[in-house]
Amino acid sequence: MEKQEDYIFGTRAIIEAIRAGKTIDRLLIKNEGRGLLYQELLEEVKNAEIPIQYVPQSRLDSITRKNHQGVIAWLAPMEFQSLQNMLPEIFEKGEDPLIMLLDGVSDVRNFGAIVRSADCLGSHAIVIPEKGAARAGADAVKTSAGALLHFPVCREKSILKAVEFLKQSGLKIAGASEKSRRLLPDADLSGPLAIIMGAEDKGISRELEALCDVLVKIPMSGKTESLNVSVAAGIFLYEANRQRPRS
Amino acid sequence: MEKQEDYIFGTRAIIEAIRAGKTIDRLLIKNEGRGLLYQELLEEVKNAEIPIQYVPQSRLDSITRKNHQGVIAWLAPMEFQSLQNMLPEIFEKGEDPLIMLLDGVSDVRNFGAIVRSADCLGSHAIVIPEKGAARAGADAVKTSAGALLHFPVCREKSILKAVEFLKQSGLKIAGASEKSRRLLPDADLSGPLAIIMGAEDKGISRELEALCDVLVKIPMSGKTESLNVSVAAGIFLYEANRQRPRS
Repeated sequence: MEKQEDYIFGTRAIIEAIRAGKTIDRLLIKNEGRGLLYQELLEEVKNAEIPIQYVPQSRLDSITRKNHQGVIAWLAPMEFQSLQNMLPEIFEKGEDPLIMLLDGVSDVRNFGAIVRSADCLGSHAIVIPEKGAARAGADAVKTSAGALLHFPVCREKSILKAVEFLKQSGLKIAGASEKSRRLLPDADLSGPLAIIMGAEDKGISRELEALCDVLVKIPMSGKTESLNVSVAAGIFLYEANRQRPRS
Repeated sequence: MEKQEDYIFGTRAIIEAIRAGKTIDRLLIKNEGRGLLYQELLEEVKNAEIPIQYVPQSRLDSITRKNHQGVIAWLAPMEFQSLQNMLPEIFEKGEDPLIMLLDGVSDVRNFGAIVRSADCLGSHAIVIPEKGAARAGADAVKTSAGALLHFPVCREKSILKAVEFLKQSGLKIAGASEKSRRLLPDADLSGPLAIIMGAEDKGISRELEALCDVLVKIPMSGKTESLNVSVAAGIFLYEANRQRPRS
C-alpha cells in the first residue's frame, strides 16, 4: 500500500497539478467508462510527457476508496531534467561528463542508493527509462539520503536512444556485464563516459550491449554470484573517478 | 514486529536449543521475578557466550502473547566463527588475510549487503561486536542474497580487542574515516589487511582510530555528505582487491 501523501486522485485535481507545474511520476487511468474531463486530462498529460498506465477499476479501488474518478497520479518529489539540455552545459563547464544509465533497475531502495552514490562520487546525472524504472517516491528519497531532491535525474522514453545520443556526443559507453572477461581495473574509463548498469536479475539488454564501447566486470570470487546493483554502481563510479585527473 | 519463525521462547525450550547446538543470536530475559529454571539457563548461556539483554516484562509481552516464561531467544541462521581459529588457517593457505570489521553497523540491510559484498570481493571474514550489531536474522540473510548462510561471520565481545589481536598477528589496520585527508586510491592496502567500517551515523570510535595504521576516505564531491556504509564497504574491498596480486 502506498502512503497517502504520495498520490493525488480525481481528474480535475490532476489536471490542476500538471498545470501548476507539479511533476507526475506515474499516472493510472481506468481502462473503461472514462469521465467528462478525460480528453482535457489526456491533452495535459501528453504535453507534459507523463507515463500512463491503463488499469482495471478494481486496481484503482484497491489504492483508495475515495472518489478517484478513474485516475490516480503519483507526484515525483523533484523535477526530471532533460539529458539533451544538460550535456552541453557539462562540456561548457570544461568537465568530462560522467553519466550513469539504469537499464531497468526496478528496486526503489537500489535506485535511491545509486542516486546517493552518484551525487557523492562525481557523476553528473542518472538516466532512467519511462517504463520499468523504480518509482521516484518517498522511499527512494529516503534511501538516497535526500540526494534525489537535488541530483539531476533524466527520464527518457528510450534508454537505447539516450545511449545513442550520448555516443554521438562523444561519450565512451561502458556496460557492466558479469559475462565480460575485461576486468574493471584494467578498463580505460578516462574522458567523457556513460556507464550502463543493468536490471538486478537480467543485466543489460543485448541491444544496449551492442552499443557499448567496452563491457567490464568487477573482479569477483566467493560463492555469492553477484554484487548488489547499488554496490556495483558505487564501485564503477569510484573506479571512473580514480582514473580522472583530480580537481 | 519480528516474524514468528525467528524466535523461540520459554526457559526449557531455550535451554534445549542451546544444548542441541543451535546458535542464539540474542536473548531477552525479564529483569525481575525469574522462574525456577533460570539458573540452569544462565549457565548454558554463559558457556555458549550468548549476549543477554535484561528487559521489562512488558517488552517480552509485546513480542509474543504466548507463555514466554520471561525469556525469548532469536536463533541465528548460521554459526558464528572464531576469529582466533580462522586467522592461522588463512595464513596456512598462503593467502593474505582480508578481514572487515563492523564497528556498530546496526542496520540489518546494510549488514546483509556488506556480507554479500565481502563474499563476492575476496574478503575472508566479517567481524561484528556482541553489542550494537545488526541482528543476523531472516532479513539480513535475504539482503545478503544467502551469503550470510555460508560466509564466515565472527562475533567478538570487543571489537577493540579483535583489532589488537589482528594487529599483533601482522595485519595492517585501515580505518574508513571521512575526516581523513588520505584518499583511498593513494593508500597502500597491500598485504594482510583489516578494514574497519564505522556506524552509519558516527563513524568509527576514537579508541579504534588510535589503533589504525592508516585512516582513509573515499574521494567525494556533491551535496550529499556521505555514502551508504554498504556501498563504502564495497568500494574499500574493491580497492584492496585491486592492489592485490591476481590469482
